[in-house]
Amino acid sequence: MIALVTRMTADVEQLWLTALSQKLPGETIIPFRDLDEASREKVDIAVVANPDPADIAQLPGLKWIHSVWAGVERLVGELGKSRLPIVRLVDPQLSRTMAEAVLAWTYYLFRDMPAYAQFQRQRVWQQLAYRRPEQVTVGLLGLGALGAASAARLKEAGFNVIGWSRAAKSLEGVETFHGEQGLDLLLSRSEILVCLLPLTGETKGLLNGTRLSMLPKGASLINFARGPIVVTDALIAALSSSAMKHAVLDVFDVEPLPADNTVWDHPAITVLAHISAPTDRETAAAIVAGNILTYRETGALPPTVDLARGY
Amino acid sequence: MIALVTRMTADVEQLWLTALSQKLPGETIIPFRDLDEASREKVDIAVVANPDPADIAQLPGLKWIHSVWAGVERLVGELGKSRLPIVRLVDPQLSRTMAEAVLAWTYYLFRDMPAYAQFQRQRVWQQLAYRRPEQVTVGLLGLGALGAASAARLKEAGFNVIGWSRAAKSLEGVETFHGEQGLDLLLSRSEILVCLLPLTGETKGLLNGTRLSMLPKGASLINFARGPIVVTDALIAALSSSAMKHAVLDVFDVEPLPADNTVWDHPAITVLAHISAPTDRETAAAIVAGNILTYRETGALPPTVDLARGY
Repeated sequence: MIALVTRMTADVEQLWLTALSQKLPGETIIPFRDLDEASREKVDIAVVANPDPADIAQLPGLKWIHSVWAGVERLVGELGKSRLPIVRLVDPQLSRTMAEAVLAWTYYLFRDMPAYAQFQRQRVWQQLAYRRPEQVTVGLLGLGALGAASAARLKEAGFNVIGWSRAAKSLEGVETFHGEQGLDLLLSRSEILVCLLPLTGETKGLLNGTRLSMLPKGASLINFARGPIVVTDALIAALSSSAMKHAVLDVFDVEPLPADNTVWDHPAITVLAHISAPTDRETAAAIVAGNILTYRETGALPPTVDLARGY
Repeated sequence: MIALVTRMTADVEQLWLTALSQKLPGETIIPFRDLDEASREKVDIAVVANPDPADIAQLPGLKWIHSVWAGVERLVGELGKSRLPIVRLVDPQLSRTMAEAVLAWTYYLFRDMPAYAQFQRQRVWQQLAYRRPEQVTVGLLGLGALGAASAARLKEAGFNVIGWSRAAKSLEGVETFHGEQGLDLLLSRSEILVCLLPLTGETKGLLNGTRLSMLPKGASLINFARGPIVVTDALIAALSSSAMKHAVLDVFDVEPLPADNTVWDHPAITVLAHISAPTDRETAAAIVAGNILTYRETGALPPTVDLARGY
C-alpha cells in the first residue's frame, strides 16, 4: 500500500492522488490523513511532498520514500536518521523547464530589462550599448541534470558558458572548473552567475561577501537553487555599492518571503516566488509511477539520495 | 567617391567612417558635412543613415544609395521620387539579434515577468500556473529574414509557431497564412503576437481595434517593427479593458516617445527605446563594403528596395 504524505492543501493533494492513481491502477494509494491505524501498518512506500516527519514515523512498515520534488535537503535533514532510502524526482521535463528559466532570466539581465523598466518609470528614452551573447560569459554553479540542460540552452543562444561543480565534470563545449580553487577562477570570469547547486552542509553560505567580491565589476546573480546558499546581507551590500548590478532571486532563507523583508524593495533585486521550475504533475506522476512499478516487479530502487552528501 | 550622409552626431559618424574606411581601403569616403562643392560632383555612392534629403539633392552624380539600416520607409518616402536605387541593410547579425529579442521578450511574457514585477511592488508571494511552451501559440507577422530567424528560435524553444505574410510563404515547421483572410485566422489563434512587418501603405494602421479584437482573450503583443502599424488608442483600449494582457512596444508613432505620452505610465505596456535589434556597426560596415566592392568590380547592385512596395 502507498501513502501520500504531504503538507499540501486537500484539493492539491487530490490532484496528485488522481494523477498517481491513473498511472498505478493496481495500487492502493491513500492520503495519510485518510489512513486508519490498521492501514498505516500496510504502507510500504510513501510518496511525499514536504511531509511532516511525525506522519512518516507512524508508518512502521515503510521501505522507502519517493519525493515528488527534486530538492530534498529538508527531507534529508528531517528523515536522514531513519536511514530510509529516499528517492528524489529526476524529471527531464523539470530540467527543460529549469533550463528555459535560466535562459529566460539570463536574457532578462543580458538585454537590460531591469534598466529599461527603470527608464520607463522615469520616462527616459535611453539606448544602452548592445553586446553580442558571444561577448558575455555566463557561469553556472552546479553541473547536474539541471546545470547540463541549462548549459546547452545558453550555448545554443550563443553565450560563452563556463561551469563549476564540487567534483570534476566535463560538459561538451563548456569550460569546467571544480573544487575550491576552481570556484575562485569561475567567479572571476562570470558576468552572469547562475546558481543551481543543491543545498548541503558544503554549499550553505557558499556565496558570501568574499566570494561575491571575486565577480567582475557589475556582475549579476541568478539564484534558482536554495536561499541559504547565498549570504543575503553580503549580496545586498554588493548590490547597494554597485559592485554588482542586479540579482534575480527565486529562493530565500524563509519562504514565502515575509512581507516585511527589505529584499522586496531593493531596486537591484528581482523577487520571484519560487517559480523557476515548478514540478509538472503530469510528467512527475508518470516518473514516480514508473519507479514504483519497477520496484514491484524487480525489487530494485532507482538511485537513492546519498544521505551524507545530501542529494 | 563615397559620401557618408547621416544625421548622426559627429563622433558617431566618425565611428562609421572608420569602420567603412578600414574595409574599403581603395575608396575615398567623406562625410557630407566635410564635402566641398567640387567633391560633391564626384560622389557616385551615398552610404546613409536617416539622411537629410536636401543633402542628397546636392549630389548630382549619385548612382545609388546604401542605407546602414534595415527599415527604409522614411528614406523611400523622402527620396522615392528621385528614382535612385536604394539598397537596405540585410545583415544576418541583425536577424540573429532580432530573433534573440523576439525570444527574450516572448519569454518575458510567457514566464509572466510583468505580473511578478507587479507582485514584487505589492510584496505579494504568488505563484502563477506554468504552461509548457508547446501549449502556447506565438503568431509572427512578417516572414522575411527577421521573421524566419525568429520563427526558428521560437520553434527551438518549443513554442507552437504560426506566421503570416502579405504573399504566400512557406517555412519549415511553421503553419503559415497570407492575405486578408489568413490574417484573421492567425490573429484568432495568437496568444502572443509578434509584429515584424515593414511599414508600408498597406501595413499602416493594420493592427486596429477590429483586428486586435480577433486575438484570444488575454493575448499579448510585441511590436518590434514600426509604431504606425499599430493603432495606439485601440491597443490602449484593449489593454485597459483586459481584453489584452500586455504589450511590449519598442517602436512608436513619434520617437523618442515624448515624455508627456501616457503610454509611459500604462501598467500593461512595457516601453523600450527602439533597442530590439540595433545595427551592429562592425558586421554592417562589412556588408556595405562588400556590396560596394561588387559594384565596383561588376557594376551589379544588390537587390534594391521596391519603391512601390516600400521595402
